Amino acid sequence: MNHFFKVMGLDQVMGLAPGFPAMPLETVPLNAASARILGQDIVADQDLPSFRRSTMDGYAVHSGATFGASEANPAWLQIAGTIAMGETPSFSLAPDEAAPISTGGMLPEGADSVVMVEHSEPVDEATVEIYKSVAPLQHVVDRAEDYRQGQKIIKAGTRIRPQENGVLAALGVTDIEVFQRPTVAIISTGDEIVPVEETPAPGKIRDMNSHTLAALIQEAGAIPLQMGIVKDNRADLFDACSQAVEKADMVLISGGSSVGMRDFTVDVLSDLPETELLLHGISISPGKPTILARSGNKPVWGLPGHVVSAMVVFKVVVLPFLKKLMGQQDWADKGLVIPAILTRNVASAQGRTDFIRVDLQEKEGKLYAAPVLGKSGLIRTMVMASALLEIGENVEGLEKDTMVNVLPM
Amino acid sequence: MNHFFKVMGLDQVMGLAPGFPAMPLETVPLNAASARILGQDIVADQDLPSFRRSTMDGYAVHSGATFGASEANPAWLQIAGTIAMGETPSFSLAPDEAAPISTGGMLPEGADSVVMVEHSEPVDEATVEIYKSVAPLQHVVDRAEDYRQGQKIIKAGTRIRPQENGVLAALGVTDIEVFQRPTVAIISTGDEIVPVEETPAPGKIRDMNSHTLAALIQEAGAIPLQMGIVKDNRADLFDACSQAVEKADMVLISGGSSVGMRDFTVDVLSDLPETELLLHGISISPGKPTILARSGNKPVWGLPGHVVSAMVVFKVVVLPFLKKLMGQQDWADKGLVIPAILTRNVASAQGRTDFIRVDLQEKEGKLYAAPVLGKSGLIRTMVMASALLEIGENVEGLEKDTMVNVLPM
Repeated sequence: MNHFFKVMGLDQVMGLAPGFPAMPLETVPLNAASARILGQDIVADQDLPSFRRSTMDGYAVHSGATFGASEANPAWLQIAGTIAMGETPSFSLAPDEAAPISTGGMLPEGADSVVMVEHSEPVDEATVEIYKSVAPLQHVVDRAEDYRQGQKIIKAGTRIRPQENGVLAALGVTDIEVFQRPTVAIISTGDEIVPVEETPAPGKIRDMNSHTLAALIQEAGAIPLQMGIVKDNRADLFDACSQAVEKADMVLISGGSSVGMRDFTVDVLSDLPETELLLHGISISPGKPTILARSGNKPVWGLPGHVVSAMVVFKVVVLPFLKKLMGQQDWADKGLVIPAILTRNVASAQGRTDFIRVDLQEKEGKLYAAPVLGKSGLIRTMVMASALLEIGENVEGLEKDTMVNVLPM
Repeated sequence: MNHFFKVMGLDQVMGLAPGFPAMPLETVPLNAASARILGQDIVADQDLPSFRRSTMDGYAVHSGATFGASEANPAWLQIAGTIAMGETPSFSLAPDEAAPISTGGMLPEGADSVVMVEHSEPVDEATVEIYKSVAPLQHVVDRAEDYRQGQKIIKAGTRIRPQENGVLAALGVTDIEVFQRPTVAIISTGDEIVPVEETPAPGKIRDMNSHTLAALIQEAGAIPLQMGIVKDNRADLFDACSQAVEKADMVLISGGSSVGMRDFTVDVLSDLPETELLLHGISISPGKPTILARSGNKPVWGLPGHVVSAMVVFKVVVLPFLKKLMGQQDWADKGLVIPAILTRNVASAQGRTDFIRVDLQEKEGKLYAAPVLGKSGLIRTMVMASALLEIGENVEGLEKDTMVNVLPM
């Protein structure tokens, strides 16, 4: 513990993230692009749609011909022709004419709107009665009403949701540039840790943290790489770290909960080539004993050993760095923050940011956040929790019935 | 349109979901179980943890020996021995003894608590001064404090989050029973639709909907199967549907926006063997022209052609059925519903449930829902939106500044 302790506040820690570059780009087919991060701006290279389309079944008309039309005083229009789906109408429409059209059909030249089929009645094969007037462009989507050629549609760094996928399809994008998924190595440390498939001898426990972390990494859209368990031994940890930095884009050293192991982690990080210790302790609870180094341009984290602490640190500290690596433009955003009513008083120490596990409960249309109490070594408290409540470092505590913002997890 | 129109309210439609059985189970390795749906109840077959562990670095003690200890009046305790990480201590602790212990270490017989290293000072190799009293079980996690043998931990039908993954690891579960992922076939219909890789001729558009739906299916944790585009032709649609019902666990017929195509869909569903039309129209907007049939025990949906309508129907109607198939116990829940402040008046018709696209915006710690206006044929409105606002069928509209609950998307 003779190392200079670089304890930082949460905001200061976030200020270190821009120092890590985003992953290189790769091209993937559109149907593999879901939830990936867009590597290029998307600009419309065409009008969408490229023609005036009907949004209803009915009659394409010139709106002026329907003005004043009612059940008592219908407009009589002549049928100009038939519009086949997916084709350009072979005729144009005179002001006193109409043409039956289906939803999605292309309006003929001269037509500016569609009368719904419910507001019409064919008189004979050549004539239709219209019972209701329509305004110009009513019941149509005009050419370029979705996007105009040259318009910027989606920014690089955006996560591709189903709707962005749809826009790309509409533009005819079959292959798309996205940021490569980072690989995140997990090194589990500690003489007391055994692999999941082993029955732990008395005094030993199974490797819970590296599985929890792997699942969190996967959930974030990155690729976990489990490097196995390293005993409390400086040389072994050095070897594992060297390999991890080589193979992965980010490294998590999990555990190292004993005093000796924490020292090893700092020593090993100091010994790694081109590696600088950036952070040794964050003023958050749980999660204070967190370490961050930069090895080359890769972040290497030492995470606290308690499973709850490790999960909280991942969510509130590691995840923004991971998003930065993934190219997400909104990496610094906390994500969707949900307002809820606190169900009981919560104490908090000044000078550090506290994260309280809460269970979100809906009652009569209102959302309540019920604190889940319990030690940070108990995974049970995370199974019972569905969100985290952040209490700022200048807040002493929060009172029952206060409206708070929580982060779902 | 000569078919009997089975228009239903949203609640009635949800009442049809229990008629579809959940998928069969399969066994997957733990590291492939993230976000899968648990197929069996998880019961602790052992105490977790299996021994009394320290949660701090310090000295294992008998708490009684520290009562009244202070800086002015420290307790003197004799060092009983050394505790190696991951091992059973070779000695038991007499009331006037202490033993150095690391976080995660096993307490010796006789010790019931741990004094933090900050509150102690070694006098010599055999003696330590204690400056602060500890209560019984302070700074330890007791045997079975997380879970007791025989305790039910996670219910079948639960989605496996990182924390559930951690619990399974702690129990030594290397392989786990989960529900199989359903395959969902997408048939895209319409003479006006061309594949994404084609340049649409005038009057035609690219197949946006089947890509949007495939991404939604993937996001839900199911497997999309794109069956390609079928022209407005009853025989072709029948063939495609027959194949889809054979290959998939659920079928979505996308589009069919023309009158003819809608008729074909109903006709074809009536012609399929062992198929019953359950629903022909839902009193929601957008999304009214939705069709549901049961073919054998598989749901077959006819979705509206407008891309926004198709997405909304997927989110609010199809998704609960898909979750039911996936075995999710909470299939009927709307998921995380978020309270937000409405930024403008919104009108709504009585007798139907309206879904308004909104953009969630955080300002000064408050969450606002800003309605995104625009026709349901415009994908742009979905790109701008981040949530859906549901307006119940007995509500005429909502006023600006009302607190509303929205569904993120």
